[in-house]
Amino acid sequence: ADPAAVAEARAHQDRLTKPRGALGTLEEVAIRLAGAAAVSPPPLPAPAALAIFAADHGVHAQGVSPWPQEVTLQMVGNFLAGGAVANAFAAQVGASVTVVDVGVAADLDPAPGLRISKVAYGTADLSQGPAMTARQVAEALEAGITVARELVDQGARCLITGDMGIANTTASAALICAFTGQDAAVATGRGTGVDDKTLERKIEVVRRALHVNGLTREPDAAPRTAQAAPVAGAAPTGQAAPFQTVASAMETLAAVGGLEHAAIAGFILGGAAAGVPVILDGVIAGSAALAAAALAPAVVDHCVAGHRSAEPGHAVALGHLGLRPLVELELRLGEGTGGLLAYPIVCAAVRVMHEVATFDSAGVSDKEA
Amino acid sequence: ADPAAVAEARAHQDRLTKPRGALGTLEEVAIRLAGAAAVSPPPLPAPAALAIFAADHGVHAQGVSPWPQEVTLQMVGNFLAGGAVANAFAAQVGASVTVVDVGVAADLDPAPGLRISKVAYGTADLSQGPAMTARQVAEALEAGITVARELVDQGARCLITGDMGIANTTASAALICAFTGQDAAVATGRGTGVDDKTLERKIEVVRRALHVNGLTREPDAAPRTAQAAPVAGAAPTGQAAPFQTVASAMETLAAVGGLEHAAIAGFILGGAAAGVPVILDGVIAGSAALAAAALAPAVVDHCVAGHRSAEPGHAVALGHLGLRPLVELELRLGEGTGGLLAYPIVCAAVRVMHEVATFDSAGVSDKEA
Repeated sequence: ADPAAVAEARAHQDRLTKPRGALGTLEEVAIRLAGAAAVSPPPLPAPAALAIFAADHGVHAQGVSPWPQEVTLQMVGNFLAGGAVANAFAAQVGASVTVVDVGVAADLDPAPGLRISKVAYGTADLSQGPAMTARQVAEALEAGITVARELVDQGARCLITGDMGIANTTASAALICAFTGQDAAVATGRGTGVDDKTLERKIEVVRRALHVNGLTREPDAAPRTAQAAPVAGAAPTGQAAPFQTVASAMETLAAVGGLEHAAIAGFILGGAAAGVPVILDGVIAGSAALAAAALAPAVVDHCVAGHRSAEPGHAVALGHLGLRPLVELELRLGEGTGGLLAYPIVCAAVRVMHEVATFDSAGVSDKEA
Repeated sequence: ADPAAVAEARAHQDRLTKPRGALGTLEEVAIRLAGAAAVSPPPLPAPAALAIFAADHGVHAQGVSPWPQEVTLQMVGNFLAGGAVANAFAAQVGASVTVVDVGVAADLDPAPGLRISKVAYGTADLSQGPAMTARQVAEALEAGITVARELVDQGARCLITGDMGIANTTASAALICAFTGQDAAVATGRGTGVDDKTLERKIEVVRRALHVNGLTREPDAAPRTAQAAPVAGAAPTGQAAPFQTVASAMETLAAVGGLEHAAIAGFILGGAAAGVPVILDGVIAGSAALAAAALAPAVVDHCVAGHRSAEPGHAVALGHLGLRPLVELELRLGEGTGGLLAYPIVCAAVRVMHEVATFDSAGVSDKEA
């Protein structure tokens, strides 16, 4: 983050015709984005583009989800037909929708709005060994970077992450445990709504995945999640976790990630490289952001946590990243829905910096000292 | 609320291509609005109109705010010039802005976007006796009802409450204590940001106002605020507080309310009568809604709590009304800013009911039983 832009943004907030600090979290968002853009006020984050990365998961075979695997493919069709919740939300907030096949376990026909960047027909079962090869991770990352760059080239000034992949909350939980040291029982949730017995099995699968892949680690001695006291996504006080080398971050992704997780990590890297804000959706994006931050800690400056999902691992990931979610509505859908709901709020936060009068310019009396 | 429309809305939510309940609070919002509109899906709440009710307060003389009283007038000028935060947010979400002078302590020149419905040049000091006469309350209520009706006649399908009035959080705190039985020390906050000493004085002023006006009452034996377990603004389990007659609700407003509080209560009544949703902004709207609910309990069905402000009395009011806020971003500005931020979320919730495909229509497999 650019300290001069941060300082100028903070000073500008205090000149605007409102009590100082009266916009709460929104002031911090605008100030952070000024720092990321190295200019105050930061550019308006419009228009926005949602990319939904779709992929399948070998771990589905372990019975971690009540949904058949083909729902991934069927939902891709639903997105392309405009019938999913993400489409309705995108229409509401004026975001474009691009669907990216990075690993659906079936061949897709070309269609408007679909980008086929298939790396594999789904991952291997992460509870038996690595989910992906090193090469697959690199290809999925590259696919995400490319989508980000192309969307920005086409005019997008804000990127929103989306995902679709039956069983992908299992991979997210494993990634969150691997990157934060959190226990599987804490980081694993009910995803789209599994029963107690399936949740128990899911926790066991996550535990086994970590063990089989040599990723079981002690919790951080001083867990950042509890300490961070995150403010509107301020960069983590102690920089983003240099506990892993780039190589080991890639290995972690390969071991227990999904193709959409790797692609979203690339999408975050690409958006940050292009200098635009990236609004993170839910737990899939949060776990992918842990990987992106391990690869390049500075990308967190460009990230805005759109919402906090009902999935418990999401809060763990956001705490570790030092990001504070804008919307908390008990969503547990994915697709980018939480990020889309947060988008007008991010716009409003930045718009204030451009359009609101100062005490001087408006002739409004300031508070008495 | 219409039970058939509620049941149909709930059943429709469960047919849509998403895991059941995956939209959390948004599902409840859409279902409530179906009940209020007596049709499922409920109409899209667009376009939206924000009305900012402006008025001054005799209690300002007690030193309850660090801002000079003329800031009310100056901010009206700022709204009309488009320079306030409410203007930036309204532009972001596509809402119109109407400023209503119901009690500014100065004469205003006619201007586009300004409606002059002045009842008085501010209220009397509520810590010395009644803030308003019965006739003033009736006139301010009528002004709010009229603005609501006219905005709906002009095409608005959603109303958003806004307010401007230096010292109006003091009146709000007193109203909240009077309507809920809560203690002044709990319901009174720092408003736009007063220091410890001023806060102490403010609490004392609220206490005196309740005493002088004969409104000191015991806390509810079983406080509804703690019990309600509010779900997305579901109607209070035990109907809205029949602890007061209509006459005594009017008397309470007259004793410790503000002209904008009375007008906003009327605006809520008018919006509900016109059958459109009313998005409540912060603590001013929350306290006005207590008055509206005391006058006509069913209006709560039409209300959506836009956000929860940093003001502690706001949570007390929302708890009493059984309303759950959509956005919690530590805002403490007023003007309608929190309601405006919630508006796209309300639209998104309703839009889902109109646009999202069902499992059958999209050919998506349902979860295994």
